[in-house]
This record gives sequence, structure tokens and C-alpha cells, in this order.
Amino acid sequence: MTKTDFMAMALEQAQKAADRGEVPVGAVMVDPDKNQVVASAGNEVEATHDPTAHAEMLVIREAAASHGSTRLAGFDLYVTLEPCPMCATAISFARLRRVEFGAYDPKGGGVEHGAKIFSQPTCHHRPEIFGGVQEQEAAALLKEFFASRR
Amino acid sequence: MTKTDFMAMALEQAQKAADRGEVPVGAVMVDPDKNQVVASAGNEVEATHDPTAHAEMLVIREAAASHGSTRLAGFDLYVTLEPCPMCATAISFARLRRVEFGAYDPKGGGVEHGAKIFSQPTCHHRPEIFGGVQEQEAAALLKEFFASRR
Repeated sequence: MTKTDFMAMALEQAQKAADRGEVPVGAVMVDPDKNQVVASAGNEVEATHDPTAHAEMLVIREAAASHGSTRLAGFDLYVTLEPCPMCATAISFARLRRVEFGAYDPKGGGVEHGAKIFSQPTCHHRPEIFGGVQEQEAAALLKEFFASRR
Repeated sequence: MTKTDFMAMALEQAQKAADRGEVPVGAVMVDPDKNQVVASAGNEVEATHDPTAHAEMLVIREAAASHGSTRLAGFDLYVTLEPCPMCATAISFARLRRVEFGAYDPKGGGVEHGAKIFSQPTCHHRPEIFGGVQEQEAAALLKEFFASRR
């Protein structure tokens, strides 16, 4: 599987989240050594009444549990939206190797915007970051979702 | 119960966390209208292999689940250590009224240090913050824990 396949799977999770009435963000965690998806999720904030249940948090928690370690060094995260500061900090704690994200989020993002978590001198681990990956598909899902709720 | 009682309960959770080999941080979530603790927890990062299982996250998740809402407006969090940027962002998402914390954390904190989450223009909700509450007890627990592991 290629990077494009992994982001397509994250987009699929985002679409499923939208279908459940969740903000359409999806994520997959990949073990690149095995070229394998180890966890995938869409937002579950509304369904579980959990303000922390962002897609990124769910795949980090699931992957760490199945890996039996709080650290996922060498793992890569594909997510359809720029992570917020909560998720960016969790990504740093999990020691991920790389983050590829779709749409930029000037209002809520914490990677390229706002708190810029990985640029803080107190940040102990900074993954490689690739933003704007299949950005248009990711942004279109979000736009459509919020337009339908107005 | 008074504020001192609530922080004493958070410190008790921190001590229990230390006894389990976790970084000794404890938290309690309080519904001030009922003068009642609605959730309490210590760190569970090691036990659950979950890098996001900070005490604050656990009480937010538990309180939100039992409250049936992602928003805990009017609720107060007592925590023995300055929240990190992950927890501070979750606190903002949960719309907490107030955060009282014990020890300041220049290396990992995200309230008064580093990302200063609540001071970001992109932060949509800033609770009242009281730092340094029963600071010495909270700091002593952490100091003792890290000294014993050297």
C-alpha cells in the first residue's frame, strides 16, 4: 500500500464520521516496516460524549494498547485535518515518526497554527510533518458537513 | 467540602498513582453547584499503555460520560500539577469553569509555560486558572517519585 492508499483510508473514516453526525475527520496509524494499518478511526466525540475522542487520539490509544507500549516510535499517522494542540501533544508523547495531514486548520490547528506544539522549546519530540496531503478531498468533506448543518 | 478538601483528594490520587509506579499526578472534577466530586483519577499511562491517560483526561472523560455531554460548563478541575498542552486543550474543549493546580511545570506545562494554550488567540474557551495551590505537597510527591527512580 502507498501513502495515497493510507490517506484514502483516513478519508473513508472521515466520511463515515460525517455519516454518524460527527465532524468529518479520520485517521489511520501505520506501521511502515510492515506496510500495515494498525488502527483506524473517525471522530467519536458526539457518540461517546467524549470531548477528547478525536480521530488521532483514538488511533494513538488503540495502537499503543495493541503495541503494549505508550511509545509508537517509527509509526506514521495519516489524518485528514491538521491536528489540534491536544492531538499534537499526544502525537509527541507517542513519539510518532511522521504525521501526514490533509486540510490546514487556521482556527483550530495546533501544528502550523495557534500553539504550534512542535515548535515549542518544551516539546520533547517532533515528528516529520507533511501538510496539505489530498487537502481538497479533506477540506471538501468538512465544508459539506458544516454547510449541511447551517 | 472546601477547595482544600478537593485538592487533598487530588493529592491522594497522586499518591495512589505513585504507589502504582505512575508519575504522581492526581485530579478530581467537581460540580460546584452540588459541592460534589463527579470524577477522580490518578495517571494511568503505564498501567494502560496509553500515552493520553493523564489524570486530567481521565476525569474529563469520566465526567463527560456520566454527564452525557462533551461540555462540562460550570465544572471545576483540581489537579496536582500544571496541565500539559494536551490536557489544557481538553479542558478548553470541555468548557470547564475553573482549574486549580498544584505544582508549576516549567518543562512540561502548557498553561503558564510552553504552548500557553489558554493565551492563544485560537483558544475558544479559557477557564479561570489558579496555580500553586498546595504546591509544596504536590511538588514533594513528584520530587520523591523521580528521586526514587534514579
